Amino acid sequence: MTDVWQECMEFSVEITKRAGKMIREALQKGALLRWIFSVYCLLLFCFNMTDVWQECMEFSVEITKRAGKMIREALQKDIAIMQKSSPVDLVTETDQKVEQLIISSIKEKYPTHSFIGEESVAAGAPSVLTDDPTWIIDPIDGTTNFVHRFPFVSVSIGFTVKKEIEFGIVYSCIEDKMYTARRGKGAFCNGVPIKVSGQEDINQSLVLTELNFKRETEHFNTMLANVRTILTIPVHGIRSPGSAAVNLCLVASGSADAYYHMGIHCWDMAGGAVIVTEAGGVIMDISGGPFDLMSRRLIVASSRAIAERISKEISEFPVGRDDTEG
Amino acid sequence: MTDVWQECMEFSVEITKRAGKMIREALQKGALLRWIFSVYCLLLFCFNMTDVWQECMEFSVEITKRAGKMIREALQKDIAIMQKSSPVDLVTETDQKVEQLIISSIKEKYPTHSFIGEESVAAGAPSVLTDDPTWIIDPIDGTTNFVHRFPFVSVSIGFTVKKEIEFGIVYSCIEDKMYTARRGKGAFCNGVPIKVSGQEDINQSLVLTELNFKRETEHFNTMLANVRTILTIPVHGIRSPGSAAVNLCLVASGSADAYYHMGIHCWDMAGGAVIVTEAGGVIMDISGGPFDLMSRRLIVASSRAIAERISKEISEFPVGRDDTEG
Repeated sequence: MTDVWQECMEFSVEITKRAGKMIREALQKGALLRWIFSVYCLLLFCFNMTDVWQECMEFSVEITKRAGKMIREALQKDIAIMQKSSPVDLVTETDQKVEQLIISSIKEKYPTHSFIGEESVAAGAPSVLTDDPTWIIDPIDGTTNFVHRFPFVSVSIGFTVKKEIEFGIVYSCIEDKMYTARRGKGAFCNGVPIKVSGQEDINQSLVLTELNFKRETEHFNTMLANVRTILTIPVHGIRSPGSAAVNLCLVASGSADAYYHMGIHCWDMAGGAVIVTEAGGVIMDISGGPFDLMSRRLIVASSRAIAERISKEISEFPVGRDDTEG
Repeated sequence: MTDVWQECMEFSVEITKRAGKMIREALQKGALLRWIFSVYCLLLFCFNMTDVWQECMEFSVEITKRAGKMIREALQKDIAIMQKSSPVDLVTETDQKVEQLIISSIKEKYPTHSFIGEESVAAGAPSVLTDDPTWIIDPIDGTTNFVHRFPFVSVSIGFTVKKEIEFGIVYSCIEDKMYTARRGKGAFCNGVPIKVSGQEDINQSLVLTELNFKRETEHFNTMLANVRTILTIPVHGIRSPGSAAVNLCLVASGSADAYYHMGIHCWDMAGGAVIVTEAGGVIMDISGGPFDLMSRRLIVASSRAIAERISKEISEFPVGRDDTEG
């Protein structure tokens, strides 16, 4: 499974040879039209074989819908019980249930695939990204929002092969918005194509980030200093919706022009990252270098100009990598 | 119209006297049942007369729906044109059109009522709140969100009599959520009763505020210092949705536990303020004193404990009053 493209290429060479032979024979025999149709069918079959991951994507959309329904049902529980007794327990319980649903369904269908999930990692292991087909799963992105029923809570699934993201799904389940993107085939929200705003002027931009307390004073100071720096550029404003995956989709659909974050995890980014790039957006590391899924840092924007400007303006604080720390 | 309650009271005294006379007569004549029914009808009529503003409220829900439709239609315009040519012009144009729709419709039906609207005030006059029945209108609350199609954009209407808010309407028109509250009769979202979270522990709370650049350095520093102070308590997080009226409704519906703001206007608060209190929330001034609609400052929360704690934690910066500055 790891070198499927090589196999496809070799298969295509064979098919093409057979197609050429057919054409030669048809030209000799004069039954051209009939043979053209046969060649067309063969090439179509060959072409479909090269997109083996499309089926995985369609399958994961179905699973994500079921996961979203499970989250909405958990949110039906009485808010008083939820907040006063043990909100953390409810989140953990739902998080685990949803991840279990997703992973067991996928494992049954694709037993050889690998998984990186927020809940599995919480158990201690670092997340090692290999060349294998890998499902990177955040069962509930926006757990604080979940506890409060703040309306941005999502299920995020990213799928990588040879460490490249092949497709991403983010289901903002309170809003009932299903964002999807297949590499090279565009980004969609509920089936309708989406694109970034295209904004290039940072002064006209709306910027997303996270505003959380951090125990490390240096990190906390740098995070707040960055908020000040970005506001002072000035920009139109800063918004903090509280779900990384939804933030990526807000940029992808043109409702915000940029999003930056240090301390994020691969399962927060994998689904949304390809949605942003397929919607015409730019993704890069906080340093301005290439985006690294395991680096716990990212900037996305509607244009390279805005992404690079944010990279220049903000200061970094050290965050570990997902593949070296458990 | 200005002292309608006095008139109602005098009217009730008359009705009650006549009702008493009827009962005496009925008792004398023995036709008790028939007369009880008549008395009941009279008292019912009298009772309905005392809620003269209910009709205004129902009328304004209809107007607000039409206003929301107008905003959604404006948002259909191509986002590229909107952002690159003159987003400010589009906002101003839509703001004025929507305010015009609301004010002209209300004036036609209630020619003696007064108005305070964001757009009228932008023309220069201070907003003087009198004892008259007064409509306080924000045609588009969240204009930056409007420009970016960030999903929190609302129409807000508050209605005061003798400076007290009788009812409030906030229509979050992208989400299609119609929040309503009539003083003493509860708060609703799309007709379903809503209530605050009831959270009393600040450490378990989600807090809303605004994050905008301010030209006055002292204000800007204080605003950012307050964000740091609140996060350090610590709280679950800070969110900045970007529409004051929606923020009030998020607290009212239990999706957030508190919201504080200095520099807000009466038209941002009038609709949502009564929605929060009718949903069981607490409203106060930044100082911890009584809420003043024209003061440009407020704290709302799910409980008195949280509101008072925020009041103690944050520092003030001077903001003018709506009724002394144009």
